[in-house]
Amino acid sequence: MIKVGVILSGCGVYDGSEIHEAVITLLALDRAGAEAVCMAPNIDVAVVNHLTGKPAEGETRNVLVESARIARGKIRDIAEVKVADVDALVFPGGFGAAKNLCNFAVKGSDCAAHPEVARLVREIVAAKKPLAAICIAPALISSILGNDKLAHKLTIGSDKDTAAALTKMGTEHIACPVSNFVVDPLNKLISTPAYMLAGSIREAAEGIEKMIEEVLKMIGNKR
Amino acid sequence: MIKVGVILSGCGVYDGSEIHEAVITLLALDRAGAEAVCMAPNIDVAVVNHLTGKPAEGETRNVLVESARIARGKIRDIAEVKVADVDALVFPGGFGAAKNLCNFAVKGSDCAAHPEVARLVREIVAAKKPLAAICIAPALISSILGNDKLAHKLTIGSDKDTAAALTKMGTEHIACPVSNFVVDPLNKLISTPAYMLAGSIREAAEGIEKMIEEVLKMIGNKR
Repeated sequence: MIKVGVILSGCGVYDGSEIHEAVITLLALDRAGAEAVCMAPNIDVAVVNHLTGKPAEGETRNVLVESARIARGKIRDIAEVKVADVDALVFPGGFGAAKNLCNFAVKGSDCAAHPEVARLVREIVAAKKPLAAICIAPALISSILGNDKLAHKLTIGSDKDTAAALTKMGTEHIACPVSNFVVDPLNKLISTPAYMLAGSIREAAEGIEKMIEEVLKMIGNKR
Repeated sequence: MIKVGVILSGCGVYDGSEIHEAVITLLALDRAGAEAVCMAPNIDVAVVNHLTGKPAEGETRNVLVESARIARGKIRDIAEVKVADVDALVFPGGFGAAKNLCNFAVKGSDCAAHPEVARLVREIVAAKKPLAAICIAPALISSILGNDKLAHKLTIGSDKDTAAALTKMGTEHIACPVSNFVVDPLNKLISTPAYMLAGSIREAAEGIEKMIEEVLKMIGNKR
């Protein structure tokens, strides 16, 4: 059975994984007969009140524990996941990808990724296994691969400021509509804008479902 | 545009709404061109650690605030929602439906529903608008309609103990596989087992998607 790592960053668009993007990913993988291997870093982070959109002052939550809500308890600490455990990686978006898996939300193009996330990304790319990034997650991938001076292509949709930050980190940014995805065939990178552009869950789902299909095709081509 | 109320009970299967069931519902509604009107009660409840499955001692969270994570911030206090605001209601499952929207999880067939939830359910049924309940949520509906001595039919799948509790509350329980749903045409009630029986997200989605299609068909028939 094909196993696809799904890297979560909490539970909620403003301080964790974008929940719709994560669930659409899990459903698309299951419908294609692939097993999702959910994982997240074991770190404490700040909380945002999703009703007001404002910080919940003084409150912290654990990313692995909160991500377990999306995974229904079946989740691993990313520090314990080896590249041999998965055939591909998918990063859903949400601010958690830019705040918890790296600090892009604060540092922009000067950001750095969580060390265990960076390790697994580098190992997957080196192993020529597909890596997919949704919404803002390509900024995280850019920070890792750009730092390594690896020529590569990604999309975050069409937001000029975010695209400029990716370019500065060393990514060739390709503009892309929400209904589609961008492929970097050399590095086996696939990215789709989802809620960077989506006006509704249906729009986010269209690009993500196509992207997952492409990820599984790439895995199949290798085997 | 058709508006369907989606009643959330928090964010996570063990202390709130089952996230997959809620997101699958939102996606199915959007794909059918219906607008989801998310709502939840404004109450504080106990927290379960979804990594360990054990209570997070001393921690409470607000159901409306946590439900906003699934709704991406666009959510209303159920106390402010009038029956005229929606064409139908859908209740995703998760323990929140049995712990926060009523106390079935603690009291079994002696349970009582949150007063604002009970009010809206009674108003919807009286207005002959469709009401759909997923997973364990039919226990909540049973507690309200059973209390009113209204003859009605629901399913929670095939779990004997839960079915017996519904029967005791006054529901005619109809066994149902995860891939299907049960209709009570007289009261316009639709229910599907989802994670009461589902072994995977794909299985839960199959019944929920069929159920949403039936809900929208019932709304169309009325208009």
